[in-house]
Amino acid sequence: MTEWHSTVTPPALARLLDTAARLPQPTGRRPTYRRLADQVRTLVSEGRLPVGARLPAERELAAALALSRTTVATAYEALRADGYLRSRRGAGSWTTLPEGAPPPGDALHPVPPDEQGHTLDLGVAALPAPQPYLGEAAARAVEQLPAYAAGHGCYPTGVPVLREAVARRFTQRGLPTTPDQILITTGAMGALHLLHRALVGPGDRVAVEGPSYPHTLQALRRSGARLVPVPHAWPGGPELMPSWDLPEWQRVLRGAAPKLAYVMPDFHNPTGALIEEEQRRELLAAARASGTIVLADETTAELGWGLERAAGAPTPAAPAAFPRPMAALDRGAQVVTVGSASKLLWGGLRIGWVRATPALVRRLATDRVYSDVGTPVLDQLIAAVLIGERLEEVRTHQLERLRASAGALSAALREQLPGWRFAEPPGGLCLWLATDGLSGTALAQAGERGRVRIAAGTRFGADGAFENFIRIPLTVPAPAAHAAVERLAAVAEQAATGDRWPTADGGSPLVA
Amino acid sequence: MTEWHSTVTPPALARLLDTAARLPQPTGRRPTYRRLADQVRTLVSEGRLPVGARLPAERELAAALALSRTTVATAYEALRADGYLRSRRGAGSWTTLPEGAPPPGDALHPVPPDEQGHTLDLGVAALPAPQPYLGEAAARAVEQLPAYAAGHGCYPTGVPVLREAVARRFTQRGLPTTPDQILITTGAMGALHLLHRALVGPGDRVAVEGPSYPHTLQALRRSGARLVPVPHAWPGGPELMPSWDLPEWQRVLRGAAPKLAYVMPDFHNPTGALIEEEQRRELLAAARASGTIVLADETTAELGWGLERAAGAPTPAAPAAFPRPMAALDRGAQVVTVGSASKLLWGGLRIGWVRATPALVRRLATDRVYSDVGTPVLDQLIAAVLIGERLEEVRTHQLERLRASAGALSAALREQLPGWRFAEPPGGLCLWLATDGLSGTALAQAGERGRVRIAAGTRFGADGAFENFIRIPLTVPAPAAHAAVERLAAVAEQAATGDRWPTADGGSPLVA
Repeated sequence: MTEWHSTVTPPALARLLDTAARLPQPTGRRPTYRRLADQVRTLVSEGRLPVGARLPAERELAAALALSRTTVATAYEALRADGYLRSRRGAGSWTTLPEGAPPPGDALHPVPPDEQGHTLDLGVAALPAPQPYLGEAAARAVEQLPAYAAGHGCYPTGVPVLREAVARRFTQRGLPTTPDQILITTGAMGALHLLHRALVGPGDRVAVEGPSYPHTLQALRRSGARLVPVPHAWPGGPELMPSWDLPEWQRVLRGAAPKLAYVMPDFHNPTGALIEEEQRRELLAAARASGTIVLADETTAELGWGLERAAGAPTPAAPAAFPRPMAALDRGAQVVTVGSASKLLWGGLRIGWVRATPALVRRLATDRVYSDVGTPVLDQLIAAVLIGERLEEVRTHQLERLRASAGALSAALREQLPGWRFAEPPGGLCLWLATDGLSGTALAQAGERGRVRIAAGTRFGADGAFENFIRIPLTVPAPAAHAAVERLAAVAEQAATGDRWPTADGGSPLVA
Repeated sequence: MTEWHSTVTPPALARLLDTAARLPQPTGRRPTYRRLADQVRTLVSEGRLPVGARLPAERELAAALALSRTTVATAYEALRADGYLRSRRGAGSWTTLPEGAPPPGDALHPVPPDEQGHTLDLGVAALPAPQPYLGEAAARAVEQLPAYAAGHGCYPTGVPVLREAVARRFTQRGLPTTPDQILITTGAMGALHLLHRALVGPGDRVAVEGPSYPHTLQALRRSGARLVPVPHAWPGGPELMPSWDLPEWQRVLRGAAPKLAYVMPDFHNPTGALIEEEQRRELLAAARASGTIVLADETTAELGWGLERAAGAPTPAAPAAFPRPMAALDRGAQVVTVGSASKLLWGGLRIGWVRATPALVRRLATDRVYSDVGTPVLDQLIAAVLIGERLEEVRTHQLERLRASAGALSAALREQLPGWRFAEPPGGLCLWLATDGLSGTALAQAGERGRVRIAAGTRFGADGAFENFIRIPLTVPAPAAHAAVERLAAVAEQAATGDRWPTADGGSPLVA
């Protein structure tokens, strides 16, 4: 079996290792080869070095790092022993995953069901399904199935009843939309995947928020894009919500003229920030001037669970006061919007959508013949019932759950980790925590030993930024919040003092 | 809106046009510009020129084709008027689709539901769902849903119950398989998409059967692979089933050492050929020697509806006599297998799978985080019920339908198109018809006027081969077969005499 492997050049790996090397050094002194092996392992398990990437030859990497060849050879040997590297004479060495290892970007992946009893998952920001609504909608969809079962079941643009329901919902939110502007996709990632292929060529610049959603950053990197991060502005410090740094956006758009700008204006992941309408307008004006397409990711747009805290704050029931969707402010087909049912309804449905011009919708429907062909019919029927008929009840149900979780987690954090700082966001799925100088990566590694999965802040940065942050999801049920933060605090204690990696012979409890 | 456009160089377009120009010329004399525009339009609607491809500048194309610049400019103008080209000063011209046009490779795409009353679809080889089995399984799956709805719903490798059912089915078919060798994907195309990314790099050679499945050929082209077609051997002429041309396969594997060989050994699409076990062994031996991965597409492997015609022929109930799956003959992890529920169960479920080493399964599960993340849960539960508990009933039901369709279509073809030649295959979804010298592309074009969608043979060739073939699917219900062939014969009559395109002012009834 000879898979294809992209090659990491010695300078590229040296740069990645340089970011990894900024981690605080553990107390115990470990040999250089072990530290090198551990850093490579971190890069793989964070998803910054792809699985299947061919590493430089030992001699070349030794030269690039100014280490002895023996050190590099011993580090590669240690990685092979840990199951993170495979080598074959003549073919080189490439990264791999040990059996039973969580996939890279592990903390952003759900814990496998057979681990769930043992592990506290603070990585995945995904809710259980709203019941009984999902079950009821599924039963309704099964009743509608016979009419569809008589046909081939293939709908490249989506089942009409769902395209209509999604278009109506956009219209309700202040953005008049017709069904031919909607493409139903296999989750929001399915939408982003198609759009990256259609809109971004190798070498094209893409401006992204800093921080941003890690899977999108990684997907853009893989498609050959050059990321240009534009950090959020945090004028009030981590206790206050950030916003866009508009002068910086204007500078980047004017100077780099990126092909695409990827933004999450509504309850941004990971910070929860809600961008006000005036900033949206100004960013659009700058994008229009530079010919940049704005890709507005509205995956979390319906999750405004904290809006009522501000007295007299606008609600989605009074959408005129709420900042309008980016596309509603658009005057030149400059905005493409992505949405998802995964957060409000259920990730197990894998329903997402694109809102774009009918011409782009047709092109994307063509392109998907070479990936997923279409999205399953039954899930589309379920989503059509929930979005078309039960949306307010489902929203109330899910937002109440998020609100309770946010309240309980915030209280527990203030009590048990008083040095950590965070804002209480107006919505979204996460809290973004400044860890009082602790390395988020070290926290994630200590969590691996303590069976607490933690999403390190660096995952959300385009360039290894946000080392002293972690993200925790509002999916911890409120009654479990205190105990969860207790475990997080214990991990923090350990991260501040302990070695970062289990010894090679000790093995990791998560890689059993 | 400035999408990204891949660029077609003048020589590349000249080569494509050269293939298109081999079509028989229509009787009516048409100006050169119109013929050029029509040929480009054919390339787009056959999917051989991607939607969104940037065409050469008029001056460059004129030079490459030895035409006047005015001729090329007028052809581009005609394409713009027809809605197949868009231009912008400074950005060039790129292919597009007129509103309401069927997607490219149209005859392989289902007719939109609102067209179905008017159009005879001989393009799509997809069956309606087996009822009442699908509905019953869906109801069962909804009962199982609450246990899954309490979780996040994200299963990158697949829901365990379906991985187990698929592994058991492989084992029943003579190929012992464990669930960790199975990755559940969003249809077989989802599986192929992931595998192309993991196994094939830009510029890598991929050996493919000639003819082969068009969407795979196109997907491989798009991933930058260089296709090396290996024509089937047809020693008995089109009335007898083809097989692999093993000396040719051995020559290609030895000479080109392709990275991958893509084959459909079981009821091949489009010919229905079933490859005997000895040929499978020999191809594997040659692939082992050249270090080539064999990608065995078993999408149609369960569709052996014609096996009982040969007296005492083996059946899947006696799998020892039936040629074993390629992977069962494999001795070096050289074979990766793709399967699908779309043909036997229903395309609307979008369930496919990969059978590979556990290590490759883990890598693919990682890669899909950047495309579809996972396959919807409910459809996996439905497939698990049907594959795990009802497979024999469902197979009997679907194979009976195919057998009846094949019988009725064959009889009608012999009666109404006696010059056409074809074999009666032992299984699969199609008949592969030699059209007595008529151009398949001309037939497809005449069909467009007559509302009969036809898949031209050239779509199944890597290099414009199979001009005098078409494929028709066994999805025409037996009672409708006579009338369907009557319409096909009328189209053939027209194709033999008429102009290939509707006049620019007349428009096309399918592009209304």
